[in-house]
Amino acid sequence: MAHLQRVVIVGVGLLGGSLGLALRKRGLAQTVVGVSRRTATLKQAQAMGAITDGSTELASAADADLVIVCTPVQRIAQLVRQSSQQLSPGGWITDVGSTKHTICDQLRDVQDHFIGSHPLAGSDKSGVEHASSELMTGKTTIITPTENSPSDLIERARQFWTSLGSKCVCMAPEDHDQAVARTSHLPHVVAAALAAATDQKLLPLAASGWCDTTRVAAGNVDMWLQILHENRGPLLSALGEYAGALQQWIEALEAGDDSTLKSLLSAGKTKRDTLGN
Amino acid sequence: MAHLQRVVIVGVGLLGGSLGLALRKRGLAQTVVGVSRRTATLKQAQAMGAITDGSTELASAADADLVIVCTPVQRIAQLVRQSSQQLSPGGWITDVGSTKHTICDQLRDVQDHFIGSHPLAGSDKSGVEHASSELMTGKTTIITPTENSPSDLIERARQFWTSLGSKCVCMAPEDHDQAVARTSHLPHVVAAALAAATDQKLLPLAASGWCDTTRVAAGNVDMWLQILHENRGPLLSALGEYAGALQQWIEALEAGDDSTLKSLLSAGKTKRDTLGN
Repeated sequence: MAHLQRVVIVGVGLLGGSLGLALRKRGLAQTVVGVSRRTATLKQAQAMGAITDGSTELASAADADLVIVCTPVQRIAQLVRQSSQQLSPGGWITDVGSTKHTICDQLRDVQDHFIGSHPLAGSDKSGVEHASSELMTGKTTIITPTENSPSDLIERARQFWTSLGSKCVCMAPEDHDQAVARTSHLPHVVAAALAAATDQKLLPLAASGWCDTTRVAAGNVDMWLQILHENRGPLLSALGEYAGALQQWIEALEAGDDSTLKSLLSAGKTKRDTLGN
Repeated sequence: MAHLQRVVIVGVGLLGGSLGLALRKRGLAQTVVGVSRRTATLKQAQAMGAITDGSTELASAADADLVIVCTPVQRIAQLVRQSSQQLSPGGWITDVGSTKHTICDQLRDVQDHFIGSHPLAGSDKSGVEHASSELMTGKTTIITPTENSPSDLIERARQFWTSLGSKCVCMAPEDHDQAVARTSHLPHVVAAALAAATDQKLLPLAASGWCDTTRVAAGNVDMWLQILHENRGPLLSALGEYAGALQQWIEALEAGDDSTLKSLLSAGKTKRDTLGN
C-alpha cells in the first residue's frame, strides 16, 4: 500500500487505538491524528503510541489522506459526512461499524470517496487501554461497497486492510447485516440473556462452560444497544429461528427422545468443530 | 490428607487422567491403577505418567483405599456398586459425574462408603491426551452427601479434593442437579443450538464472539447426551425460563423499545462482570 501522509482516526477506543498502533508499527502512516471528545483518551492514546497527534475537533480531518470513523454506529454517518466536506482531494473515508446498511444508505451521495468496512475484531473489552497493534492480524474485514462504489476505492480499501494483516471479503451492506445478525448479534443476545437468567447465588458454581458461553455479554452496553437497534430486522429473523431451534430441544427433552437429542448435539458439534478454538 | 497406598481410577479420560497426574505429581498416592476397556487408553495414560498400572478389569479395584469412577454418568452407579463389593475395609468410593441425583439415589445402600463428587473442571476437550495435573487447581468441587452420609466420609472427600487444589462446596444431590442445570447444562444446549443454527456458508465470518459463545458445543456428544437425559427435569425448567427471557428480547426489539433493551443488556453485563475472564 502507498505510504499515507496523514491518517485521521475519529473515535479512539479499542478499534481506533488498535488501528493507530498497527499503522505506526508497520510504518504505513507519517502522522496519525486521533479525534476524541475526551482529552484523557487522547493523552492515553498518545502515551501508548497509537496516535501522533490528538484533537477534540473534527476540523483536524482536513487534508487527511484517509479518515477512519471508529465511533459507535449511530454517530458514524454524520461524522463521515462532516469529514467529507473538508477532505483533501484524493483522500478517502471508511469506518469500522458493526452495522452497514443504514450507514451506507445514508451516505450514498458521498460514495465516490466513502466505503464501509467492518473488521471482525471486536472484543468484550473496550477502550484504548485494550488496543493492540495485532488486533486485525489474521482476522477478516468485510468491505461493503454499494453497486455504485468506484472500483478503485474498493481496491484501496482492500489494500488498506490487507496491509494491516487482515483478510478481506466484499459484501453488499444488506448482506453484511443479515450475516452478522447471525454470527455476531444473535450470539450477543443469546449470551446476555443467559448471563442475566443465572441466579446470583449460582454464580460461584459457574465454570468454564458458563464463562465462555456468556463472555461477550460483558461488552459495552451503549455500543451494543446501538448495534441491536440498527440491525433490528435481521436480528429479529435470526432470533425467531433460534427460538424455534430451542423449541426442538425442549420437545425432545420432554419426550425423552434421545435419538433427536443426539442429532441436535451432533449438529452443534459438527458446526463448532469446523472452526478452531 | 493421609497418603493413599492404592487409588483406582475407573475411566481414564480427561478427568480420570487429570486426577492420576495430580495425585502422582503431589505424591499423594503410591499406586494409581487405571481401569479402562481400551488398552490403548491405558498405555497412553501410563506413558503420560497418569497411572502406574493399567487394567481392563474392575477386579483390580480390590484392596483400593479409594476408587474414583470417572466414566460417563449412566455407567457410574453400576461401577460404584461393583467396586464396593470388593473394596478393602476402610476404603471409600467417589465419582466425578456431572449429574448426582439419580446416581446418589441408586446408591443409598452403599452410602456408608460412597459419596458423590462433581469437580467443575470439564472442558470441550475430552480424552486422556488433554489431561493436566492442574485441571482441578482453583476450581470448585461439589460434594453431594445425602442426609445419611457419615460425617467422616464427607470430611474425607473434602480433604481429598482440597489436597488436589480444589475448593469444596457441599450440596444435596437434588440441589446440585438444579444448580448445574442452569450453570452448565443450559449453557451447553444454548451453545449447541446456536452453533447448529448458523448457516455453513456464514462460518468464515464467525469471529471471537461466535467462537466463545459456542465453544462448549464441541464437547463429546455421547457424554452430553447422557447428562441431558439424566437431568431432563431441571434442564427443562431452566430451558423454559430461558426461552421466556429470549421472548422479552424479541418483544423489545419488535417494539423498538431501547429502554428495555438497555436494561436487558445491562442485566447481562452486570452478571457477567461478576466473574473474571
